[in-house]
Amino acid sequence: MAIEWSGLTPELALRLERDADEPLGSQLREALRDALRSGRLSPGERLPSSRTLAADLGISRGLVQTVYEQLSAEGYLVTSAGAPTRAAPALRQSRVEPAPSVGGRSVAIDFTPGLPDLRSFPMRDWVWACREVARTASARDIDYGPSAGSLRLREIAASYLRRVRGVVADSGGMVVTTGFTQGAALTLAVLKARGARAVAVEDPGHPAMPSMIRRAGLQAVPVRVDEEGMVVDELRSTGATAAILTPAHQTPTGVVLSPARRLALIDWARQVDGLVIEDDYDSEFRYDKSPVGSLQGLAPDRVVYLGSVSKALGPAVRLGWAVPPAYLLRDLAAEKRYADHGSSGLDQLTLAWLMESGRYDRHLRRMRKTYAARRRTLIDSLAAHAPHLPLTGLDAGFHALATLVTDEAHTIAAAAERSVGLHGLTPYRSPGSTSNAGIVFGFGNLNESAIAQGIEQIADLLAR
Amino acid sequence: MAIEWSGLTPELALRLERDADEPLGSQLREALRDALRSGRLSPGERLPSSRTLAADLGISRGLVQTVYEQLSAEGYLVTSAGAPTRAAPALRQSRVEPAPSVGGRSVAIDFTPGLPDLRSFPMRDWVWACREVARTASARDIDYGPSAGSLRLREIAASYLRRVRGVVADSGGMVVTTGFTQGAALTLAVLKARGARAVAVEDPGHPAMPSMIRRAGLQAVPVRVDEEGMVVDELRSTGATAAILTPAHQTPTGVVLSPARRLALIDWARQVDGLVIEDDYDSEFRYDKSPVGSLQGLAPDRVVYLGSVSKALGPAVRLGWAVPPAYLLRDLAAEKRYADHGSSGLDQLTLAWLMESGRYDRHLRRMRKTYAARRRTLIDSLAAHAPHLPLTGLDAGFHALATLVTDEAHTIAAAAERSVGLHGLTPYRSPGSTSNAGIVFGFGNLNESAIAQGIEQIADLLAR
Repeated sequence: MAIEWSGLTPELALRLERDADEPLGSQLREALRDALRSGRLSPGERLPSSRTLAADLGISRGLVQTVYEQLSAEGYLVTSAGAPTRAAPALRQSRVEPAPSVGGRSVAIDFTPGLPDLRSFPMRDWVWACREVARTASARDIDYGPSAGSLRLREIAASYLRRVRGVVADSGGMVVTTGFTQGAALTLAVLKARGARAVAVEDPGHPAMPSMIRRAGLQAVPVRVDEEGMVVDELRSTGATAAILTPAHQTPTGVVLSPARRLALIDWARQVDGLVIEDDYDSEFRYDKSPVGSLQGLAPDRVVYLGSVSKALGPAVRLGWAVPPAYLLRDLAAEKRYADHGSSGLDQLTLAWLMESGRYDRHLRRMRKTYAARRRTLIDSLAAHAPHLPLTGLDAGFHALATLVTDEAHTIAAAAERSVGLHGLTPYRSPGSTSNAGIVFGFGNLNESAIAQGIEQIADLLAR
Repeated sequence: MAIEWSGLTPELALRLERDADEPLGSQLREALRDALRSGRLSPGERLPSSRTLAADLGISRGLVQTVYEQLSAEGYLVTSAGAPTRAAPALRQSRVEPAPSVGGRSVAIDFTPGLPDLRSFPMRDWVWACREVARTASARDIDYGPSAGSLRLREIAASYLRRVRGVVADSGGMVVTTGFTQGAALTLAVLKARGARAVAVEDPGHPAMPSMIRRAGLQAVPVRVDEEGMVVDELRSTGATAAILTPAHQTPTGVVLSPARRLALIDWARQVDGLVIEDDYDSEFRYDKSPVGSLQGLAPDRVVYLGSVSKALGPAVRLGWAVPPAYLLRDLAAEKRYADHGSSGLDQLTLAWLMESGRYDRHLRRMRKTYAARRRTLIDSLAAHAPHLPLTGLDAGFHALATLVTDEAHTIAAAAERSVGLHGLTPYRSPGSTSNAGIVFGFGNLNESAIAQGIEQIADLLAR
């Protein structure tokens, strides 16, 4: 016997509990598997004979034989008539790494951009909609749905997008996604397959976008953003045939793409036979004026509209939509199918109930007031404690940009020492960028008193 | 005035309803947008002056001016002091295609493979779990979660996989996916990025797999399946460094990968420094023997285990898991992040509640009985009506393979005329394959009487 069975220690699972509910055979099988995997039995090593092991454990020989046969069928053991049972030669032990730890948010007040108010998620409405789905779903609703998504959700979402965002959409012309990230990934894959090479991004812009573009096998070309949005004249010389941008409320500067730039951008897309990818980021929330409609509404033949409910409801609901030009629709739906075989049918129906019942719009109206009050608090607090700080990008959404004259990294580090989380422009900038230092103040997930308190605690750091 | 406003017909939305709730300005804006988009106003065409339009519509001039300014800000119109307002030159009208129609299932009894019983979805348990989530979720649960998925679900799923499938798993070593398709897509992307070129697939095998592999920029190499599963000796000569297969219940033949092949496969993976992708397809349901553990359990350093709840619960729940070798964990989690920024946090918690409460296992036990009865009915019906038909692959899952001596396409067409849906081996075969004709009988989503009736109706077609 190559192994000292008596040497098995209690932390090894090979220990049969006679008064447990689990049958002894099953206990033995598991215990042996564990022993084999953990390395207590080396590859090729001889096992005790069934007779010996049965005697050692005080169980029947037949039971041990059955377990040996089963582990042999699974490939853990090698058995052959007349020869001893051995651990399989190819066997290796597990080497599972611990989970990568998530970066700790240790600050008390964190002005994280890009987050809605997480505490305001309309959980009661969501559960109500879940129950409506349960009450009404057919067997077909439990099946894989169409690649483009639930027809019911597409109908309701298209109507919403037309009504609230001025998108040219109908149920037949859109693809349900799991949100902006997936919508962008699918669109980039379609572009790559159709021969595109370079995609322009805003600079400063979405921090993950250049990586996403490179992962799709494309080149990311930064194009400067000024107070009117992406500088289209500079876009023209890049050779890019696609551009991804946030026209309603630029990430991170908060500027709204100007009318002239909108037209210039579409003109560019027509000239290069290109495509604009519109990230309609936090556009539902607008304060000073009536909503500015989507860019896609101007040129549905040149714009892929990408939206999601991550800001309107919460990121934990992974649903969104892509409204592509008609010529890309089939490719985009195919990409979706190959990426994940469609979004959750139950979630899609739940969202459809939420929207159709008016609960979604009611939530938006409620949140618009909430965010307006937070925005006002941010403005007032900064006016009181850092009166000369330039604050821009306040027309929409729930972040604003403060231009710094102080050093960005130093300001952030100093604020963190006072337990206030600030987020600078650096992650949004391309390596060669010459734009100013700045702080992106997210106020979506902080209540008014936290905003006031946070600003009071760090205002002196901003204004030198 | 370049446009005959009086010529606007009622189906155009430009018609103000004085007693509607919507303000007139908003109605006008929408009506104009529609007119611009639909092509009733051509690009560059002149609009009526605000004074004229106001008079025509019987509203104030200021209101029209406001609407013009707004549409100008959105890029629909071009206004400049002293010149008439015009439709923007870059404007194009919408050309949205109708939705691609979903292939109609016109047959009355359809032996579709790969579907669980859709009517048995544990909706009551699911809603119970949704409510538990609503009752207990924190603000953090509404945020984006870790790329690898909810820690709580990973803990519970890892325990389930160890217990039921013999997988070497812990919460830190797995990535939550939206199911097998995504798990495979992410794994293929990682392989491609790491320099792999060719991936072996089973022949016959999963119909979409060769396309998925090609989309990932890799070559798909078919390797023959015999009565022991993939023929590993033939795999050796392909040059592939990865192989994707269904060891527990081969799609579509239903064979179980033999112990010798399991060891040979792992040996191959070690020799070529390669990877085995295990599609643990419908493995929860096994009839004749105790469960055969996962391949991954034998060699967690060489196997990516991919599972999902599509068969255990239903495809409409898009959740699954990937358990990769430790060295691929970080890459796989990154791919997940870039693909969709994580699976639904709410769904993940719902599934965690379902599993932790024992409701998931109870459902599996219940369904095992259901499928066992259906399997028995299929066997008995074929024995009665087509006694000499070879039927294989019945150890697990909810499909079996009948080898045909008749022509496959002809048999399927003839059955369809009797309103019975049959599914042949053809879509599963590689172009050059020489395997026999056959029918893959899926019995997961048909009740016993439908199975008996369906077989009775078409048995004569099977046995010539």
